[in-house]
Amino acid sequence: MTSSSALLPVISGTHNSVLSEQLHGCINNKTKPLGSLGRLEQLAHQVGLIQQTSSPVLLAPGIIVFAADHGVVAEGISAFPQDVTWQMVENFLSQGAAINVFAKQNGMHLQIVDAGVKHDFGSRQNLLDRKIADGTRNFAQEAAMSAEQCQAALRHGIDLIAALSGNVVGFGEMGIGNTTAAAALMHKLTGIAVADCVGAGTGLSEAGILHKQSVIEAAVSLHAEVHEPLDVLACFGGFEIAMMVGAMLAAAERRMVLLIDGFIVTSALLVAARLQPAILDYCVFAHRSDESGHGKMLAALAAKPVLALDLRLGEGTGAALVYPLVQAAVNFLNQMATFGSAQVSEKSQLVD
Amino acid sequence: MTSSSALLPVISGTHNSVLSEQLHGCINNKTKPLGSLGRLEQLAHQVGLIQQTSSPVLLAPGIIVFAADHGVVAEGISAFPQDVTWQMVENFLSQGAAINVFAKQNGMHLQIVDAGVKHDFGSRQNLLDRKIADGTRNFAQEAAMSAEQCQAALRHGIDLIAALSGNVVGFGEMGIGNTTAAAALMHKLTGIAVADCVGAGTGLSEAGILHKQSVIEAAVSLHAEVHEPLDVLACFGGFEIAMMVGAMLAAAERRMVLLIDGFIVTSALLVAARLQPAILDYCVFAHRSDESGHGKMLAALAAKPVLALDLRLGEGTGAALVYPLVQAAVNFLNQMATFGSAQVSEKSQLVD
Repeated sequence: MTSSSALLPVISGTHNSVLSEQLHGCINNKTKPLGSLGRLEQLAHQVGLIQQTSSPVLLAPGIIVFAADHGVVAEGISAFPQDVTWQMVENFLSQGAAINVFAKQNGMHLQIVDAGVKHDFGSRQNLLDRKIADGTRNFAQEAAMSAEQCQAALRHGIDLIAALSGNVVGFGEMGIGNTTAAAALMHKLTGIAVADCVGAGTGLSEAGILHKQSVIEAAVSLHAEVHEPLDVLACFGGFEIAMMVGAMLAAAERRMVLLIDGFIVTSALLVAARLQPAILDYCVFAHRSDESGHGKMLAALAAKPVLALDLRLGEGTGAALVYPLVQAAVNFLNQMATFGSAQVSEKSQLVD
Repeated sequence: MTSSSALLPVISGTHNSVLSEQLHGCINNKTKPLGSLGRLEQLAHQVGLIQQTSSPVLLAPGIIVFAADHGVVAEGISAFPQDVTWQMVENFLSQGAAINVFAKQNGMHLQIVDAGVKHDFGSRQNLLDRKIADGTRNFAQEAAMSAEQCQAALRHGIDLIAALSGNVVGFGEMGIGNTTAAAALMHKLTGIAVADCVGAGTGLSEAGILHKQSVIEAAVSLHAEVHEPLDVLACFGGFEIAMMVGAMLAAAERRMVLLIDGFIVTSALLVAARLQPAILDYCVFAHRSDESGHGKMLAALAAKPVLALDLRLGEGTGAALVYPLVQAAVNFLNQMATFGSAQVSEKSQLVD
């Protein structure tokens, strides 16, 4: 099995030494001690480079939540039954989930995508039907999806981004069993031991975690010949993960700000970054999840998360929660006075 | 010297085991894995206890920035000249500082208070004149303020809170030299070695930090007989710090949510907590500042900060930035569906 990547977006990095210098100058001239806005200064610099301007503007921010089911749940690797995937999609549509609350609070448009949920929703307002199949196959026995299904998912993800009007997009997901898929992807793409990739997901016991680990280890042995990122994605991934990979690549190609949520979303980014490393320039890593493998996954990407709130909910909740801090970064860059304009004295030479 | 605390607010803690249980029940019934909103769940629980309800509401949030000057700048302990205090107050009034930007973004009313700036502002709209004196005296030579001045500052702080209409208040400060005052307070009230209390402030060099340390150590020897919290406050504190102590006590007495900013604001809280330990129930610790002593100061209060963004700006910027997360906590508690209302299946008993 070899999945072609011929049609995927090609991403250029944001490197621009002249603009970088200019942004540092703007940031350092603001009425505050040098570097005293810490992480927000890095975010302001990053968003400036992404938008290729020293006056960036955040427009029509959105969150896309991709939902799908996973055949590997047949191995008993989740604390919740598979029906919770479609039930939570219904909850999203009824505005009852955490991501509804946080997206609304922070003025972010929320889009729910059925990437492959094992349920017939019928035709529903506010639910985008991009269903590839009624869930993936069980990767403990066979590849989760075909190369064609993987390509179709990537394509849908790309097209979803093309339809957006804004320049900020957060990624979220829902899919019972998808921390198992994400842990397998993490192991295959980073070489980190399976035991360090596996966590409690929605709430497994210690014994449940060990079982999940053994399922992944057996599957990894079964598919030992799979190595290329897109092949790994098709073999172990979910439709929601594959669709996110396509969407992430397309969003970075459009020079959008990508808000990366937790463990599963980061596993999609891991695939995308193996294909197009420059995508990392566009990513704001919202938070370090409480899912135990996330810290190491972020480290494998040399990513520094903004928040650490012990979240482990998914749905894009971390991406929605970090957005006001990205706004704060852009706002201080655009709105704060400079030492000159405010006639504030600069640092003394005498005492330092 | 002994400063009376007879007229200060008396604070009851928020302990209420029935309501606590009820809040845990509400939080755990929301459509999410148990505990998966991490820190936000703790905040929701805390705000519920503060407001004595399982449906808390955040009203008219405000930030008060207290500004004052410090006689100890005569010892050359700051990287910026003293005039920056009044110049930054002007910057606040012109909407050019970081706190203006963040308060506006997050819908927080901003109030600027002259607690004792060494400058004649005249009568100015939007600047509350509560000036105790043109800066404190130099605590390297004598007590920073008299007991009467300290009491007046506390009183003004209490009265400022009485005039607020909301139930959330963030504390901020501006005062060249005030990390020196805060470090001295920290040492006296916690017993932590001066070297571990002193940091770079607005940007001292290594040599500057050592000098600052030696100034504080000499002053501590000079005032070795001072021990009671209010005496320590009068001896080493600033007018902005003393006014914050009064305001904090009054805000907790009114059962408001207190948003605690960085190193200097936390030093004021340290004084308040030594007087009325129950005040801690009302405090949201916004962030761990990059000022080196702040982590140990928070630990001395057993406080767990929400953010860690390497901020070291003061002005209440951390308090403003954390507010959307407090809103998110209250919003999920009030707005999310329950497993029952959304008909989402609960955790399986089979696999766990």
